Amino acid sequence: MTSKIKLGILGGGGDSLIGVLHRVASSMFDRYELIGGVFNPELAESKKFAKEVGLRTDRIYKDVDSLIDAEKKLPEEERMQVISVLTPNFLHFPMAKQLLENGFNVICEKPLTTTYEEAKILEKSLQQSNTIFAVTYTYTGYPMVRQMREMITAGEIGKIQKVDVQYYQGWINSVIHDKAKRSTVWRLDPKRAGISSCVGDIGTHAFNMIEFVSGLEVKEILADLNYLYKDNKLDIDGTILLRFSDYVKGIIRSSQIATGEENNLTVSIYGEKGGLKWEQENPNCLYLLEDGHPIRVLKPGHIYNSKLSLDGTKLPPGHPEGIFDSMGNIYKGVAKAIKKEDYNPAEFPTIRDGVRGMDFIEKTVESHKNGNVWVKLDQ
Amino acid sequence: MTSKIKLGILGGGGDSLIGVLHRVASSMFDRYELIGGVFNPELAESKKFAKEVGLRTDRIYKDVDSLIDAEKKLPEEERMQVISVLTPNFLHFPMAKQLLENGFNVICEKPLTTTYEEAKILEKSLQQSNTIFAVTYTYTGYPMVRQMREMITAGEIGKIQKVDVQYYQGWINSVIHDKAKRSTVWRLDPKRAGISSCVGDIGTHAFNMIEFVSGLEVKEILADLNYLYKDNKLDIDGTILLRFSDYVKGIIRSSQIATGEENNLTVSIYGEKGGLKWEQENPNCLYLLEDGHPIRVLKPGHIYNSKLSLDGTKLPPGHPEGIFDSMGNIYKGVAKAIKKEDYNPAEFPTIRDGVRGMDFIEKTVESHKNGNVWVKLDQ
Amino acid sequence: MTSKIKLGILGGGGDSLIGVLHRVASSMFDRYELIGGVFNPELAESKKFAKEVGLRTDRIYKDVDSLIDAEKKLPEEERMQVISVLTPNFLHFPMAKQLLENGFNVICEKPLTTTYEEAKILEKSLQQSNTIFAVTYTYTGYPMVRQMREMITAGEIGKIQKVDVQYYQGWINSVIHDKAKRSTVWRLDPKRAGISSCVGDIGTHAFNMIEFVSGLEVKEILADLNYLYKDNKLDIDGTILLRFSDYVKGIIRSSQIATGEENNLTVSIYGEKGGLKWEQENPNCLYLLEDGHPIRVLKPGHIYNSKLSLDGTKLPPGHPEGIFDSMGNIYKGVAKAIKKEDYNPAEFPTIRDGVRGMDFIEKTVESHKNGNVWVKLDQ
Amino acid sequence: MTSKIKLGILGGGGDSLIGVLHRVASSMFDRYELIGGVFNPELAESKKFAKEVGLRTDRIYKDVDSLIDAEKKLPEEERMQVISVLTPNFLHFPMAKQLLENGFNVICEKPLTTTYEEAKILEKSLQQSNTIFAVTYTYTGYPMVRQMREMITAGEIGKIQKVDVQYYQGWINSVIHDKAKRSTVWRLDPKRAGISSCVGDIGTHAFNMIEFVSGLEVKEILADLNYLYKDNKLDIDGTILLRFSDYVKGIIRSSQIATGEENNLTVSIYGEKGGLKWEQENPNCLYLLEDGHPIRVLKPGHIYNSKLSLDGTKLPPGHPEGIFDSMGNIYKGVAKAIKKEDYNPAEFPTIRDGVRGMDFIEKTVESHKNGNVWVKLDQ
Repeated sequence: MTSKIKLGILGGGGDSLIGVLHRVASSMFDRYELIGGVFNPELAESKKFAKEVGLRTDRIYKDVDSLIDAEKKLPEEERMQVISVLTPNFLHFPMAKQLLENGFNVICEKPLTTTYEEAKILEKSLQQSNTIFAVTYTYTGYPMVRQMREMITAGEIGKIQKVDVQYYQGWINSVIHDKAKRSTVWRLDPKRAGISSCVGDIGTHAFNMIEFVSGLEVKEILADLNYLYKDNKLDIDGTILLRFSDYVKGIIRSSQIATGEENNLTVSIYGEKGGLKWEQENPNCLYLLEDGHPIRVLKPGHIYNSKLSLDGTKLPPGHPEGIFDSMGNIYKGVAKAIKKEDYNPAEFPTIRDGVRGMDFIEKTVESHKNGNVWVKLDQ
Repeated sequence: MTSKIKLGILGGGGDSLIGVLHRVASSMFDRYELIGGVFNPELAESKKFAKEVGLRTDRIYKDVDSLIDAEKKLPEEERMQVISVLTPNFLHFPMAKQLLENGFNVICEKPLTTTYEEAKILEKSLQQSNTIFAVTYTYTGYPMVRQMREMITAGEIGKIQKVDVQYYQGWINSVIHDKAKRSTVWRLDPKRAGISSCVGDIGTHAFNMIEFVSGLEVKEILADLNYLYKDNKLDIDGTILLRFSDYVKGIIRSSQIATGEENNLTVSIYGEKGGLKWEQENPNCLYLLEDGHPIRVLKPGHIYNSKLSLDGTKLPPGHPEGIFDSMGNIYKGVAKAIKKEDYNPAEFPTIRDGVRGMDFIEKTVESHKNGNVWVKLDQ
Repeated sequence: MTSKIKLGILGGGGDSLIGVLHRVASSMFDRYELIGGVFNPELAESKKFAKEVGLRTDRIYKDVDSLIDAEKKLPEEERMQVISVLTPNFLHFPMAKQLLENGFNVICEKPLTTTYEEAKILEKSLQQSNTIFAVTYTYTGYPMVRQMREMITAGEIGKIQKVDVQYYQGWINSVIHDKAKRSTVWRLDPKRAGISSCVGDIGTHAFNMIEFVSGLEVKEILADLNYLYKDNKLDIDGTILLRFSDYVKGIIRSSQIATGEENNLTVSIYGEKGGLKWEQENPNCLYLLEDGHPIRVLKPGHIYNSKLSLDGTKLPPGHPEGIFDSMGNIYKGVAKAIKKEDYNPAEFPTIRDGVRGMDFIEKTVESHKNGNVWVKLDQ
Repeated sequence: MTSKIKLGILGGGGDSLIGVLHRVASSMFDRYELIGGVFNPELAESKKFAKEVGLRTDRIYKDVDSLIDAEKKLPEEERMQVISVLTPNFLHFPMAKQLLENGFNVICEKPLTTTYEEAKILEKSLQQSNTIFAVTYTYTGYPMVRQMREMITAGEIGKIQKVDVQYYQGWINSVIHDKAKRSTVWRLDPKRAGISSCVGDIGTHAFNMIEFVSGLEVKEILADLNYLYKDNKLDIDGTILLRFSDYVKGIIRSSQIATGEENNLTVSIYGEKGGLKWEQENPNCLYLLEDGHPIRVLKPGHIYNSKLSLDGTKLPPGHPEGIFDSMGNIYKGVAKAIKKEDYNPAEFPTIRDGVRGMDFIEKTVESHKNGNVWVKLDQ
């Protein structure tokens, strides 16, 4: 009856932020319906969480095997069509492999696996199946990142001659200098994080971004990593020289010890005809630089953008996409009020605000029409 | 079984942007479940739209009367608990009134009504009911707007001495100078838009924002509006002097003929101890100015923010709220692929991207460990 | 023998900042030679100051009468050709008048006089003389302000429909709330400052800027001033509605109680074809907004600028004009070293820095040519 | 009689921009008097230029030998005390050496010499003399660069752990792809520019900046340069990995093919307690980042700045140093008017502007005092 795609999720329960992100994202264009999944290794926890997010519990499973078994028995039109894998990194590989082998479409968080070897095996599984597989390098979904790619593809900056991507964070600074604190951080534990902290977590985003926007493939790299302390086993900072060809060179700079930086991902691509620059912390501006011309600042939603970019914009120009969140906060406040939970009166505007607004409009027109005189609002 | 609030919507069907905004917002914190409503004056259209957004059609109604009748017959735990009113402005009043009188909670788009008189009647209806009523002045939901309010309430900028709010758009410029085009714009038609275009649409947001963040009430106003042409009946630009007291003065500047401006809402509040500034087009920065101190830039999600602000942030610092939209775009691309619709390969990262990423990480560590030498990536 | 213009200065001695500004400005294009003047009411002080700034004292005068007498006796080619009047405001009128009547060209600080009456008398004096008279509304000298004017004159934004200028400072906040402190501020003393503090000092800059860039004349005004305290005699904040015609309206907002603001002068002019925006605290950017086009950011020195703008740029694009000051600071450090004054070694780069630089260049090329290997710098 | 330092200049005649920069800089704090020098290899040209900039020609010399001979014969108090060397790079070494050997203080443009070998010889000459020697790495003179250094020295960001400096320009893009054009650019000619274009010109600024602000010395480097074309002999882009110690690493990125970039020098230093960032194209802002605190934006002239920084600020906060240039432009316009040269009326404000300003002030107060009513300005 519904044309929505049936979605299952592995992981992402409890306080998981990535869980929130995937659930909201899946609802954005009215195209998915979350059916169930395995939110937690403990079935009871998983069911509890399902209730919290308003799901029925009949398709909450003990583990991925049970999920596959049960779903495959359902008629095709009722079966989960796609499964999002949000579990810890080391589980991506076995879970995704099993899902592919059983014909499920997969949306997998990055990094794809914990080793290159596993990744190649997974790629083969996919080739033998007939499914869709997406890795959520989220930043490629921004309208102005898509616009950057389309402009480069269309030759608007000419042949590329220089590529520079930065991804700086500072959060590890607060733990790295204290050995006790450091040992509590899973990203610094080779058993859980694999062979890299900084490059594995964010350098890889930078790498993906470069190949996405430039359309070029990196051929060779030369890396210089920093571990700061000898007994720290994984890199927390890395600069990587890139070679695309004899002609085109590039740089990735990534860091988790750029103290005070939040999530400072910047992309600069320079071609023979122009340069394009984008910053994740100001994602609605794309800068086009050209010799002898004013800088151009492109923003989402305008007709001068490409189809690919416009497809990812839901609101008119000037409404930052974050306005969804702003409205979401107001809905949240109303929910608290309806549920008689504790809430701050500032969480949503009330009828009083609406009444004041109407008084304001009428008195404004009255003041003007009477020759720009003072008029009192009702109090 | 579910703890979600059952939500009905009036209006917001078809291409309505405000409809998208409310649906997504309601899904953001897993607290609402959209059940049905009246999306369109034509029942068939309404049902068609319901299917498109993945709803069952059994609670899609012909009109608000039918909705009220049918829903009231349902057991309380199944009944729609809150109705969002997204219809054209002149319908807000009769619909909201009827809903209140029948005990429904209401979320109503702004402006609340078309006249101050209606607004006051509605306020009385609410007082006689026992329901929650919210008006969606969306901008008050931004984390840094909430932070601004809380800092002012806490006295961080001292006693307020000056208030300045701007809301500039330019979209009417492209139609106002051509009488034929102008006549097609409903905001310029007194029958549909009421007594004001600019002040009624955006000046009222500015007014609400001032009272929200400052905690002050405007006492008196003096307005100067611009209509540009004699045969244009509604204001398209307005400056309004505000008086809060003998001591505190303020200004609202609003315009729809600030050519090229998108949605330039800015708020500046100055007190005896400091000033606070915020801009809607850069909503994650709140600027605190103080005599003899560096400017401070506050951003969402940090522990230095108030509870009210933090409650509206779902992700760690540095992730602009728009990242939800970015992820949403990726999910949309995957949906197209699954549904075998036409799509651009750039709409989501594939396993190939994931494989490349793993190769990159391993080769990076290899290059570093071998003494910063060039290493080839697999091609 | 020299083609430089002989310049005299009245006022601007001691710690006067305006004195520094005029002396440096006069030297910038090698067109003036400072000869002497009256720097201080006390002749001895005046001479002392002359020596400090490296002038001979033979053309330092007791007062403006002596200056006029003596200079007029000199052969025309030796005589001061232009006199800059930097004295307290109430002296502008009598001094400028006398200078005009004696055939001197005059550069006068703003405000021109203390009353409109005086200003009109001075204008008449000028009409009867054959001299050049400039009022130093400094902001009109910025290359991008000039560019704004030229673009508007050339019709690039079409017929103007809205004008908005802001000039916000916060410095008076630190004295206004304390009656004792307040009484020490000459700008708040009607005897010394005239009838206005805020509008007289900075509102007038905003007014001049509007007429300069727009080419329009203000016809009518409606003002709302703030004095905060009843026993404060002069305005410290003022909003002024402007009428240029039935069609074009505008606003000036000026304040000295916008706490924490430094010198926040912004200019926005909107026309039927586009908008132009400029901010004094970021003076090298001029923003051009147009319906349906990317924002354009114009910067000084580029060929796309007008002749008037380019004439005021001395360096290639990307060198902010402040680089003169940076170089000036280095020269100052060297002067201290030569004079064996106390100085910080960081005040100028030494030969050691130059030597390190050469080592760096050579080792860089060596590292690259040897295949991107590590090379040690000499220590 | 005067306390000014007597200054001679070698080079910098004709259209030389660097000549303008040094002349203006020397005048900024009233501490230098330009006496003469050798502006041009042709004596006649040199004298012509001297006249143009308002100098007497009696101390304009044929060459550096004549200058040294003649000046040494003068009594010490009349002799040039310091000589600025602004000639082409290959002349820096012989000229500076000769000047040092004859006891003159020297201000030398960068790069110091054309080889490291020469630089070390010069350093020895200096050690044997008793003179002051400055190399004009101009960017170290900015107030906020000096502040950055002082804060780092004072330990405000803790032990440094990461250093990142970028210097991107795009100007060579417009010539590099065309062999004929390329051959006309002296920076690309090994005979005139030495062994490097990009690193020699701007990489060296980045290098100096790092050592200046961080107080650290670079120990080892690994470089990757780009020449784009095989028949292009000098680098036009270079990334350089830096090692300060086992703990501290850094990067210099420099380019002349970052198309559309003007002069984009940025400095980021991260320590265990915080990070500091500065951008040359926005030189009045210094950003301090700390874990869990709002970003702080420091600006020149405030009391929170260090003595070294304040010493380089001549005006109150909010007046960008470029205001000197703005005033300079107005003086230039007045000079044209006095000399009866062709000029644009917009080049300086006239008495009419001053008169309008006075009318505006008086009418503003009148409007307010009469109850915020419209008042006409005189036309």
